[in-house]
Amino acid sequence: MKKHNFSAGPCILPQEVFKEASQAVLNFNNSGLSILEISHRSKDFVDIMEEARSLALELLDLEGKGYKALFLQGGASTQFLMTAYNLLQTKAGYLNTGAWSRKAIKEAKLFGDIVEVASSKDSNFNFIPKGYDIPDDLDYLHLTSNNTIYGTQLKDFPSTNTSLICDMSSDIFSRQIDFSQFDLIYAGAQKNMGPAGATLIIVKEDILGKTNRKIPSILDYQTHINKSSMFNTPPVFSVYTSMLTLKWLKKLGGITAIEELNEKKAKLIYSEIDLNPLFQGFAAKEDRSNMNATFTLVNEDLKETFDAMWKEAGINGINGHRSVGGYRASIYNALTLESVATLVDVMGDLERKA
Amino acid sequence: MKKHNFSAGPCILPQEVFKEASQAVLNFNNSGLSILEISHRSKDFVDIMEEARSLALELLDLEGKGYKALFLQGGASTQFLMTAYNLLQTKAGYLNTGAWSRKAIKEAKLFGDIVEVASSKDSNFNFIPKGYDIPDDLDYLHLTSNNTIYGTQLKDFPSTNTSLICDMSSDIFSRQIDFSQFDLIYAGAQKNMGPAGATLIIVKEDILGKTNRKIPSILDYQTHINKSSMFNTPPVFSVYTSMLTLKWLKKLGGITAIEELNEKKAKLIYSEIDLNPLFQGFAAKEDRSNMNATFTLVNEDLKETFDAMWKEAGINGINGHRSVGGYRASIYNALTLESVATLVDVMGDLERKA
Repeated sequence: MKKHNFSAGPCILPQEVFKEASQAVLNFNNSGLSILEISHRSKDFVDIMEEARSLALELLDLEGKGYKALFLQGGASTQFLMTAYNLLQTKAGYLNTGAWSRKAIKEAKLFGDIVEVASSKDSNFNFIPKGYDIPDDLDYLHLTSNNTIYGTQLKDFPSTNTSLICDMSSDIFSRQIDFSQFDLIYAGAQKNMGPAGATLIIVKEDILGKTNRKIPSILDYQTHINKSSMFNTPPVFSVYTSMLTLKWLKKLGGITAIEELNEKKAKLIYSEIDLNPLFQGFAAKEDRSNMNATFTLVNEDLKETFDAMWKEAGINGINGHRSVGGYRASIYNALTLESVATLVDVMGDLERKA
Repeated sequence: MKKHNFSAGPCILPQEVFKEASQAVLNFNNSGLSILEISHRSKDFVDIMEEARSLALELLDLEGKGYKALFLQGGASTQFLMTAYNLLQTKAGYLNTGAWSRKAIKEAKLFGDIVEVASSKDSNFNFIPKGYDIPDDLDYLHLTSNNTIYGTQLKDFPSTNTSLICDMSSDIFSRQIDFSQFDLIYAGAQKNMGPAGATLIIVKEDILGKTNRKIPSILDYQTHINKSSMFNTPPVFSVYTSMLTLKWLKKLGGITAIEELNEKKAKLIYSEIDLNPLFQGFAAKEDRSNMNATFTLVNEDLKETFDAMWKEAGINGINGHRSVGGYRASIYNALTLESVATLVDVMGDLERKA
């Protein structure tokens, strides 16, 4: 039976990427070797890394604007540390929009003063704070563009002269933004880009080198830029599969094309949440994420019935995060409109049944 | 044509592991989902992680001895930093046996005094220093058990009360050692364990928590122990494939069985190097690595002929590292005796031809 995978991450990737990656594990490019056993210094892999880096910049429309793309290890959790280690001199601002922002703040506090410019903590992060003041003496302001757990998403970014850093782990490559408003963007691969194990960093090179702190080599962005993202053995398979996914996105028409599809999918699920009296949305309407739709049953007694129904329909991964409860349908780039329609049908069936 | 892959790493893994991993990328355990799209919090993956951790301890005979196994990201290069961050209070000793030791020393210097207890630098690291003194006020002594670039390997480890830390990236799971003499062992996966992107750390829990330094969460071994190696999204596919490789090793008879095979392979290649007048070994005989055999042509004029011959035979990855030159045959666990015999045949053919 066809599966509809709504996992929050690691998550669905394009089926053709799964096929090509699977084939490469057996026999990469007809070389007689597995992608897992080739040297990362081989021309084959160096080409893969360069293609992945250049596709990332091209898709974000950041070519020729002073940015470098890196594929490193360690996920966003490592970037919480690296951003502060490299860029925090005295004081930085953080917009607290949930668990991931909070973790970023925790690590940054080891390196300087942290100002929480605003927070939606008191309402369990079900909205995005707006209209907050940004002190003018910040080294940077850190934002989380999409909050997977709560299903909220920043629709607008502050107009400011302060350097902007953004954790885009769960919505990069999903919508058109002027990416050049950020000095540094990072994203774990495991949502819209590839398998877990790679992390994309997009950094404007001229922001580096301003702290007097001694930065360990592996944590220093400049180390990785100087070595073309090959300072140490990269996560070969994750980078390769990310490259395949970025190629798929480019062929599809890039971010403009996928954004159109993502909007259709989001509209479909949110319409059902709003029109079906059995469900209610968790996030404030104007801040709803086009990547993660969070909702709950109005009547918890229907849980068992609903859970059996969606499992029966081949749906997977819609249990909500424990800190929100209910359900979360993650509708990342590679999830089809058909999968969303299947879920919406089940929600409609429940209404007719109940 | 069958390929004989002597790559120094990433390197060959068992063919049945490639097959199973390839299948799992398409359809993991008949779930209808790819291993790349399942949640790391799913029971399926939690089981994989626990099996990998427990197989590592079992194969090293470290179960029930106070050790924890972790599968993290970032490679040995990250461990150069983490070991010092977690364990270096005032002074540590390092045995300098090559490029990787040197890199470990460089990172540790950010955290305390470093004593180089001995070095073979003056002879381009072609031997392992012995009989050196170990100061009795060290927080730990750091060793590199196998030096991939130079083809040297520590056959004996110092008898000392000093806490021993060992980088075993290129020979873990290849030979029987009393692993309990070490307080911490680390190894990038990409030689004997799995694909690039995972790093195994084996740490005796009671050595932690002794420094007053504030350790960032992601660099703190205790964080990862507390979270059962799932503090953040792990490199799912690399851990899965490592688990498959460790299962393969266990089925084969564990380290005892593979060591016997590794000794046969090493004997075969080194006999040819010693008996064939066209070649000479690089490393001192008593320190020769059973993982990486380094050798050069006595007469460089034969290079073109020899290179054409081994390529013709389906051999891959034997070019030496630039800092040593010549050739390096990496004969890791998954490389067959047949592949070594193929290389030895080509070396013999060259002698008959020349």
